[in-house]
Amino acid sequence: MINCPLPIKDYKEILIAHGGGGKLMNDLIGKLFFPLFSNEYLEKKHDGAVFESGGIKFAFTTDSYIISPLFFPGSDIGELAVYGTVNDLAMCGAKPLFLSAGFIIEEGFSMENLWKVSCSIQNACKKCNVEIITADTKVVEKGKGDGLFINTSGIGIINHKLGISPRSVRQGDKIILSGDIGRHGIAVISSREDLGFETEIVSDCAPLNFIVEKLLDAGIEIHCMRDLTRGGLASALVEIAETSEKELLLYENFISVRDDVRSACEILGFDPMYVANEGRFVVIAKESDAEKIVKIISGFEDGKNASVIGEVVGDKKNRLVVMKNIYGASRIVDMFSGEQLPRIC
Amino acid sequence: MINCPLPIKDYKEILIAHGGGGKLMNDLIGKLFFPLFSNEYLEKKHDGAVFESGGIKFAFTTDSYIISPLFFPGSDIGELAVYGTVNDLAMCGAKPLFLSAGFIIEEGFSMENLWKVSCSIQNACKKCNVEIITADTKVVEKGKGDGLFINTSGIGIINHKLGISPRSVRQGDKIILSGDIGRHGIAVISSREDLGFETEIVSDCAPLNFIVEKLLDAGIEIHCMRDLTRGGLASALVEIAETSEKELLLYENFISVRDDVRSACEILGFDPMYVANEGRFVVIAKESDAEKIVKIISGFEDGKNASVIGEVVGDKKNRLVVMKNIYGASRIVDMFSGEQLPRIC
Repeated sequence: MINCPLPIKDYKEILIAHGGGGKLMNDLIGKLFFPLFSNEYLEKKHDGAVFESGGIKFAFTTDSYIISPLFFPGSDIGELAVYGTVNDLAMCGAKPLFLSAGFIIEEGFSMENLWKVSCSIQNACKKCNVEIITADTKVVEKGKGDGLFINTSGIGIINHKLGISPRSVRQGDKIILSGDIGRHGIAVISSREDLGFETEIVSDCAPLNFIVEKLLDAGIEIHCMRDLTRGGLASALVEIAETSEKELLLYENFISVRDDVRSACEILGFDPMYVANEGRFVVIAKESDAEKIVKIISGFEDGKNASVIGEVVGDKKNRLVVMKNIYGASRIVDMFSGEQLPRIC
Repeated sequence: MINCPLPIKDYKEILIAHGGGGKLMNDLIGKLFFPLFSNEYLEKKHDGAVFESGGIKFAFTTDSYIISPLFFPGSDIGELAVYGTVNDLAMCGAKPLFLSAGFIIEEGFSMENLWKVSCSIQNACKKCNVEIITADTKVVEKGKGDGLFINTSGIGIINHKLGISPRSVRQGDKIILSGDIGRHGIAVISSREDLGFETEIVSDCAPLNFIVEKLLDAGIEIHCMRDLTRGGLASALVEIAETSEKELLLYENFISVRDDVRSACEILGFDPMYVANEGRFVVIAKESDAEKIVKIISGFEDGKNASVIGEVVGDKKNRLVVMKNIYGASRIVDMFSGEQLPRIC
């Protein structure tokens, strides 16, 4: 056995933040998992892996869903487990075909809630036009789990020749955001604690595969896509900047945040840039495609607030995300070092 | 939402036995999951799903590993998570290509143990010639998990025209078992409690893909295969009998159980027929192939005790497994109704 690589020795134990989508998680993946499992697929650091077999390109992805609570305004773990994985396939430019489902259930979990979640999975599958074709059920003793965890893995087929990946990002490209941000995170936290918001903020949880399909059908030359889950818009863009070795410039006033979400964030001390979403994504493509992309995404209910929010400005291995506000002041957008909101997906 | 189907109303809550691989689990799957998710793939009730895309046949399978303890004589959760899924692909007659890995880690889990398990995964992948190409890491709070759960899903390619499935089982077929049974279960329980056995019984945990590959390369017309995990040899065969609508007859004296395993089973009140294995499988094929199958399997270290243990006798929708002992007495082998040994895989 190889010795434990030194950097991880700073942490003798796993912290909540190691699963937070921020710096510590990147550290864990980069320093512990990567040296062991590294291969051409993982190195792409994409939402899913793209492989070829018999001349056909497929995407393959996996996610475990550990969200708490299981039911929250606007959605539940069942929908999330389908849409989350479908969206990861879509972000690879793949048309989702099949899902697997692995249930880890805690002894004593209510049969009725298992039924509700399963119905929700069924509906979500129909909505995305995917099928669960293989599954597994495990039960752990009371106190050794937390109600229900679900893993879904997905296979999709890629019917185009684009190389959609952070490494395809080019200087001059535009960054398009598909809608307002921060709703999922706020919906989940408001269901954990009675925060007494005047309006109920519901999760943005939604499938993105049909929007992506339409972009591809329209012949858009997509360079990169990323859905904004754990770590929010900020973490997704920092990851892209680092992998693509580019500098991204964002215009804060074009990033849509609903007033109620912004107020909730202020009360909670959250920055909406880091709050999780489950139905939002960014597209990076060349400037001449930007307007068409916004138009196509805006045509969907889940994309009606789409807009260009920034551009790829530097090609100097800056690996930075910089955000300008309306007064012209700039700040560097970094990855969150800790964990703003655990168990959000 | 559809109402909760009546049969499950007998159980308001999930019991440990709902994950045990026996009757209750079959009930849960058959009555709750199946009516919602049913499709041509799931209906095959195989270890994995076989689908076709672009004229190529693939197998797809998933398993969550929740074994306790994580390290046990002869193996650990890392190896198990690779071999278990590789074996499910092999049982579909597929050559394993790619795996996904989803880690659910409990806050406070030792970084060193995560490293050990990850090294074990790496070694196991090399041994089976598969790669992990997509992964996910989640962390749950202390007390909401149990150290580490791992989900792996797998994709394999099918390079032959056989329809390997319980439905291909024919009257007159022989049943071949690849080695002695019961070691994995006994190894795990002996590491949970200090049972003071004189010899250490180690798990039979092993990859089966190369054995299966050799059977296929030899042109064996395999009708069905099944690896013997949760629920042991008995549950695997009862499932095959039920799905194939056949009667299977077993000869007890041909089923190999090591003396130390048998003694341990007697002390613990276990029936080795129901004890879990992680490197054993049954092949069902026509009589004329049986001898060749035994010879090929016996050529492998993990198959040296292979033998014909029974045959398919009835074609009358009997859906039964019957076992004869050396005195000629017969007994019906049923599915375990409860849970003999939880968290065995």
